[in-house]
Amino acid sequence: MHEKIIEIAVRRGFLYPSFEIYGGLSGFYDYGPLGALLKKNIEDLWRNYFCLQEGFLEISSPTISPEEIFIASGHTGNFTDPIVKCTKCGNFFRADHLLQSYDIEAEGLNSDKIDHLIKERNIKCPDCSGSLGKVKTFNLMFKTYISPGKGKVGYLRPETAQSMFILFTRLYNFYRRKLPFGVAQIGRAYRNEISPRQGLIRLREFTQAEVEIFIDPRNNNHTKFQQYAEEKVRLLPRDRDDTIEITARESVDLGIVAHEFLSYYIVHTKNFLLACGIPEEKLRFRQHLLEEMAHYARDCWDAEIYTRQFGWIEVVGIADRTDYDLRAHEKGSGTELKAFREYVKPEIVREIKIEPLMNKLGPAFKSKAGDIAEKIRNLSPEETGDEIKIELEGDVYTISREYFCIKETKKKITGEKFNPHV
Amino acid sequence: MHEKIIEIAVRRGFLYPSFEIYGGLSGFYDYGPLGALLKKNIEDLWRNYFCLQEGFLEISSPTISPEEIFIASGHTGNFTDPIVKCTKCGNFFRADHLLQSYDIEAEGLNSDKIDHLIKERNIKCPDCSGSLGKVKTFNLMFKTYISPGKGKVGYLRPETAQSMFILFTRLYNFYRRKLPFGVAQIGRAYRNEISPRQGLIRLREFTQAEVEIFIDPRNNNHTKFQQYAEEKVRLLPRDRDDTIEITARESVDLGIVAHEFLSYYIVHTKNFLLACGIPEEKLRFRQHLLEEMAHYARDCWDAEIYTRQFGWIEVVGIADRTDYDLRAHEKGSGTELKAFREYVKPEIVREIKIEPLMNKLGPAFKSKAGDIAEKIRNLSPEETGDEIKIELEGDVYTISREYFCIKETKKKITGEKFNPHV
Repeated sequence: MHEKIIEIAVRRGFLYPSFEIYGGLSGFYDYGPLGALLKKNIEDLWRNYFCLQEGFLEISSPTISPEEIFIASGHTGNFTDPIVKCTKCGNFFRADHLLQSYDIEAEGLNSDKIDHLIKERNIKCPDCSGSLGKVKTFNLMFKTYISPGKGKVGYLRPETAQSMFILFTRLYNFYRRKLPFGVAQIGRAYRNEISPRQGLIRLREFTQAEVEIFIDPRNNNHTKFQQYAEEKVRLLPRDRDDTIEITARESVDLGIVAHEFLSYYIVHTKNFLLACGIPEEKLRFRQHLLEEMAHYARDCWDAEIYTRQFGWIEVVGIADRTDYDLRAHEKGSGTELKAFREYVKPEIVREIKIEPLMNKLGPAFKSKAGDIAEKIRNLSPEETGDEIKIELEGDVYTISREYFCIKETKKKITGEKFNPHV
Repeated sequence: MHEKIIEIAVRRGFLYPSFEIYGGLSGFYDYGPLGALLKKNIEDLWRNYFCLQEGFLEISSPTISPEEIFIASGHTGNFTDPIVKCTKCGNFFRADHLLQSYDIEAEGLNSDKIDHLIKERNIKCPDCSGSLGKVKTFNLMFKTYISPGKGKVGYLRPETAQSMFILFTRLYNFYRRKLPFGVAQIGRAYRNEISPRQGLIRLREFTQAEVEIFIDPRNNNHTKFQQYAEEKVRLLPRDRDDTIEITARESVDLGIVAHEFLSYYIVHTKNFLLACGIPEEKLRFRQHLLEEMAHYARDCWDAEIYTRQFGWIEVVGIADRTDYDLRAHEKGSGTELKAFREYVKPEIVREIKIEPLMNKLGPAFKSKAGDIAEKIRNLSPEETGDEIKIELEGDVYTISREYFCIKETKKKITGEKFNPHV
C-alpha cells in the first residue's frame, strides 16, 4: 500500500526521489509540481491557524548559523543519536533503532547502555552479519565553514526555533514590550540522519513550521482557553498505557497537561490537523517520557498520526521549553534577553547612601579631598560609625562624623526583569 | 540616506542583522515580521508573473546536493572568485573588487592577471597596509558532509537551477512530453562570499526565484511574443557605452537580443519589476560582456536598478544557457536527458539485414547450425557476397548463398532526440 502510494505520487508529479539520475541519496526528496502546490496549501492552512487566527507574525532567518548559537543552545553537545558501525562492511546504523528492530526498548537510553544491550544480545550487522563496533554518539547537525581561510564553523539549523530566541529583544520591542507574543517561521531544517530508511518520514532536509510563544511563567493562562475548554482530545499521558479522551479543561484540572497554554495549543493543533484532512480516530497526543524529552523541554506532547506502514508517527511537537533557551543564549552571548514585568503596585525600596560633605572636606584635606570623598561614597552604610578610617596612598585618614552624612532615600520600583518562557 | 533607510528598516521590524547578540556575521540578515510579509508579497507577485501568467509550475528541491551534481555542472571548478590574503593581518579580500576600488577594471580577469596588476600597482592591504599575498581562486560554495563516517561531500546549492536540470526527464513527462515548458522554484541559495560588505546586496544566504524554460533550439520563437513586440525596453548592449531604447521586436530584428524568447522575458521582467514599484527610469537591461558571462551562458542580460549607494545593481539575470547543463548532467550521470522532436513528415530509412535460412542450415550443419546462424546475423551486408566464411571454434565453414538471404526493410522514423536548451 505504502509503496503503491509513493509510486503514484512519483508518477503524478507530487514527489521525486532526489538526485535520481546520480543514483539517489536517501533522506532527500524533491517536491514535483503537484507536490509543491500541495505543500503550499498546507503551509497556507498552517499560516491561517497559527498566524492569522492567533495574531502571530512570521519571520524568516538564515538556515546557516555560527556555532556559538548551537554551543549555547546545547545542540553541539546534545543533538546526537547513538551510532554503531559494522567492523566488517563498514556500514553505519542508528543503534537504538537496531535494538528496536529486535523489539528491545531503547528509547532514551545512553550509548553505554545501548552498547551493553547489543553485546549482551549478540546483535550483528543487519547487512552482512559482521560484528558491530562500539556504540558512539553522532551529532546530527550538518557542519560547514563560513568565509574563507580557516573559516568560521557554522551549522545548518536543526530547528527553526533558535533564531527566534536570539532575536528575542528585537521581537519583544516589535510587539511593544507586551507578553505573551508569538513568532512563527516556516523554513528548511536539516538533520544528518544516520540511516534514513523511512521514505518521507525521516528526511535529512525538510520544511518545518514553528511557532514560539513567549509568555510570563507566572501567567500561563490563555485568554482564549474558554473557546477550547470543552473540546475533547485523545491523550496518552506518560504514566498510562492507553489513551484517554478528556476535555481540555479536564486535562489541565487533573494536572495531566501542565497549563492552559499547552492545552490550548493541543486543541488548536488537533483542529489544524483535522482541517488538513487527518481522520480524528487516527490522531492522538502522546506525552514524552522523561528520558526521551529534548534537552530543553519541561513537558512535551507530540501529535501522532497512525499509519499502516510506520505505526504512530510524530507530526507536531508541542513543548514547554521554559526559559532554557533564553537563559542559554544570555549566557552564551553575554546579552540580556529579558522582559519586564510591571508590579501591580510599585514597590517602594529604602535606600541608604553615604554622602561626603565637600564643603567640609575641601578646606580640611585640600588636594586629597576628592579622592577621600570618592572612597566615602563607596562605603556601605554598615561600614560607617561615628568616625571612619580611609586609607589613601598608604596613609590612613580618620574622618569624623562632621565630614559626611547618611541620607535615606526612597526609590519607586515599578517592576522586574525576567526571562520569558516559551 | 542608505544608512537611514537600513536603520528605519531595522527599527520597524523589516530587517535585523543576523546573530546580532553574538556580534553579528556579515552576509546574513533576518527578515523581521514586516520584512517577511514584504518578502512574501514580492514572492506572490513573482508567482503571479512567472507561474500563473506563464502557466509554469513550481517545484521545491533540497538545498543540499551531493558533489557529483556540481562537478558535472562545472561549479566545483568554475564557481570561484579571486581572493587575496594580507600577509600581515591575515584578512581576506576579493581581489577584483580591491582593484575596482582603485578604479582599475578587473571584471572577468583571471587570477594571474589580477595578481600581476596588484603587484604592478603596489596595492596594499586596505585594513593594515600590509603586503598582499598571491591571488588565488576561492570556491563560493558552502561544503558539508552527508551521512556519518567519512561521509559524502555535499554543497549548499549556489543557484536553484541545477535541480530543475537533473529532474528534466521527470518534468518533461509531467508536461506530457511537449516543449516548451517552464519550471519555477523559489528557495534559498548560498554563496560563501569572500567579504560581503554591501549590506543586503551581497548576502551569503538569500532567496532566489528562478524559472527554467526548456525549449527546442530550432524553434525559439515565443508564441506570445506579439503581445510584447511593440513594448520599449532600455538596453545596454555589450558593444555600446550608452543605453538604447528600442522595441522588443527591434531588439530581435537588429540582432541585439539573440531571439524572441530572451526578448519576451526581458519585457516580462520589466513589467514585473515595474509592478514591484521600481521606477522605469532607474531600470535597464545590460548585456553581459563575453568575459563576464557565467561558464554555462551563451547570452545573458541583467536587469539592473540604479541605486544612489551602489550604482547600478543586478536584480535579475536572463540567460540563454543553451544545452550546456543538460549535456553536462548527461555526461556526469550517464543518463539521457533528451526531448523528442517529431519530424513534420516521418523519414523512411532503408535497412538491409542478412537472414540465415534455418531450414537449410539445420540439416547441413546439425549442432553447429545455431552458432553459425548467429554469426551470419551479425555480419554487415558489405561483408557478404555469393559465399561467406564463418569461423567457429577454430574451424572455418564456407557458407554459400543458398543458406542465407538478404532482406531489405523500410523503417519509418518519426523524429529524433535532442537536448533542449534553457
